[in-house]
Amino acid sequence: MQKGKSSIEFETPPVVTSFASVAGKKEGEGPLGPVIDVVEQDEMFGMDTWEQAESAMQKQAADLALEKGQVRRQEIRYLFAGDLLGQLIATSFGTVDMEIPLFGLYGACSTMAEALCLGAMTVHGGYGDRILAVSSSHFATAEKQFRFPLAYGNQRPFSATWTVTGAGAVVVSDGKKYARDGIARITGVTPGRIVDFGSRDSMNMGAAMAPAAYHTIRQNFEDFGIDEKHYDKIITGDLGEVGSKILLDMMKQAGNDLSGVHMDCGMEIYEKEAQDTHAGGSGCGCAAVTLCALILPRVRSGEWKRVLYLPTGALLSTVSFNEGQSIPGICHGIVFETCS
Amino acid sequence: MQKGKSSIEFETPPVVTSFASVAGKKEGEGPLGPVIDVVEQDEMFGMDTWEQAESAMQKQAADLALEKGQVRRQEIRYLFAGDLLGQLIATSFGTVDMEIPLFGLYGACSTMAEALCLGAMTVHGGYGDRILAVSSSHFATAEKQFRFPLAYGNQRPFSATWTVTGAGAVVVSDGKKYARDGIARITGVTPGRIVDFGSRDSMNMGAAMAPAAYHTIRQNFEDFGIDEKHYDKIITGDLGEVGSKILLDMMKQAGNDLSGVHMDCGMEIYEKEAQDTHAGGSGCGCAAVTLCALILPRVRSGEWKRVLYLPTGALLSTVSFNEGQSIPGICHGIVFETCS
Repeated sequence: MQKGKSSIEFETPPVVTSFASVAGKKEGEGPLGPVIDVVEQDEMFGMDTWEQAESAMQKQAADLALEKGQVRRQEIRYLFAGDLLGQLIATSFGTVDMEIPLFGLYGACSTMAEALCLGAMTVHGGYGDRILAVSSSHFATAEKQFRFPLAYGNQRPFSATWTVTGAGAVVVSDGKKYARDGIARITGVTPGRIVDFGSRDSMNMGAAMAPAAYHTIRQNFEDFGIDEKHYDKIITGDLGEVGSKILLDMMKQAGNDLSGVHMDCGMEIYEKEAQDTHAGGSGCGCAAVTLCALILPRVRSGEWKRVLYLPTGALLSTVSFNEGQSIPGICHGIVFETCS
Repeated sequence: MQKGKSSIEFETPPVVTSFASVAGKKEGEGPLGPVIDVVEQDEMFGMDTWEQAESAMQKQAADLALEKGQVRRQEIRYLFAGDLLGQLIATSFGTVDMEIPLFGLYGACSTMAEALCLGAMTVHGGYGDRILAVSSSHFATAEKQFRFPLAYGNQRPFSATWTVTGAGAVVVSDGKKYARDGIARITGVTPGRIVDFGSRDSMNMGAAMAPAAYHTIRQNFEDFGIDEKHYDKIITGDLGEVGSKILLDMMKQAGNDLSGVHMDCGMEIYEKEAQDTHAGGSGCGCAAVTLCALILPRVRSGEWKRVLYLPTGALLSTVSFNEGQSIPGICHGIVFETCS
């Protein structure tokens, strides 16, 4: 159960029984477009404000995950959800109609992992047969909150990432009761701690998060007594090009060569040159959409038998940033394995 | 284990083994002043900004809880923490030095209950021997974020509450291994869902939260097959005078007379007339400080043998509020019982 210093190994692994992804037009035009469940052409999702649009998208992803798994809302015991916005308003207004007890989470762009981690612990602990993990981000709500008004048209350095408009939702079910419906098993988790290397460049979030990813991967290796050869893929959330390079360098110095096994959701979701997204995608939606559109289907098919999924979060706040504080990072790890 | 529709009953109840409270000058001058562990006279806590002050206060509470319980930092497996600020900056910067894996939580002023709920589930599930639950609020950071600049000196209606400058920290330990050190047992929890009655008055948060408290209390009664007579005290977080009256009215209409058993942390923490706090105290720190200064000591002594602790959160955001959205509420319930 407790494994090493920080990890958990599940004796009867909880299983993912359904999942869904919803994303915006730009994401639909990217490499994952054909495998995202719903690509909405209207960035407002039929609503009046960007925030309501993100709520609507989150609700759509949650409803679709239930529908795809043929699960009624009443069967979901708890909801683990979050987003990037202050006071989690995308989540509050997106999930209120579901009438499911909610654990509101904030882990910046690592939120999907935080939700899956606590969700898996919950069903494995016998506290519920099924839980739903949801997270989202929206380009316009994030830019508005963290950076500049869209109409200002600011220039973006090449180290900057593009916030994904997207939401993912995953139903995690008890591995004893629902083994037959399992799409992927969650065999272990490595919750991460905040790592602050003193990064102060809000246009280079990859650099702020890479040390946290490094720390969580190394902890995972240490706790389970393994190395990179244990996994078919080690997939970070949204380090992008810059952060991924830093991570690989740091890992190499520690004696782990990830070059053959590492992938980054932020680098998968857009066509860099054609879509002008610079270092890659970011936001809670980046790791969440890539999980539901690309990773889980490949784990299900057995193409990837064992994956370490590591959404990364940069704990950026305009308040602390403008007060001269650094941007700490956090990263939680989830081990997905093919159902045999 | 699973109890009724939403609750959890712990077979071997996790135990609170230590706790600490830190608060500001105004709180120190209130009725709980003599029983708060540390009353800091400097509202800046020796730091340069209000946000850093809140972080310092949170760290002080966490360190003190460990010290009082003679627990080393390394023995705490996971940290469950949150605050009111966007991106949880009080928590990020307050807990980074602890180097403990963090689950960042947002439940507005209900955060201490969310942390205790997940923390109790974690130790009972065997995922860790000890966890630490922390939450905080600071009058100045909250006013700055949610309302007006302090220097503006705005008038406050009588329905308004006063955000508590305070932090609470609670060590929850495995009930099997640490039964002898138990100060109070956590025998059950009732995680709440978002309840939105359409309240739109940000100066009357009690009214926004009362329906959520009502819902969680009624769910607790239903799930455990009990009523108000089961508890020595039913203690809401920060409904204040206005919200408490609404709650009692709603409960009465449902056939539950809480008048003899209800208490509200927001009404305990200040001397209403002398301290000019209007409807009472609020903020994550309100329920957290009252828990650690008043409630847990009385449960330990056996004066209150069984308490339902119900921190309430108003999911207020200036963004959604200014866009005309309502203020939904949430409330999680924790059952504390005396260690026999």
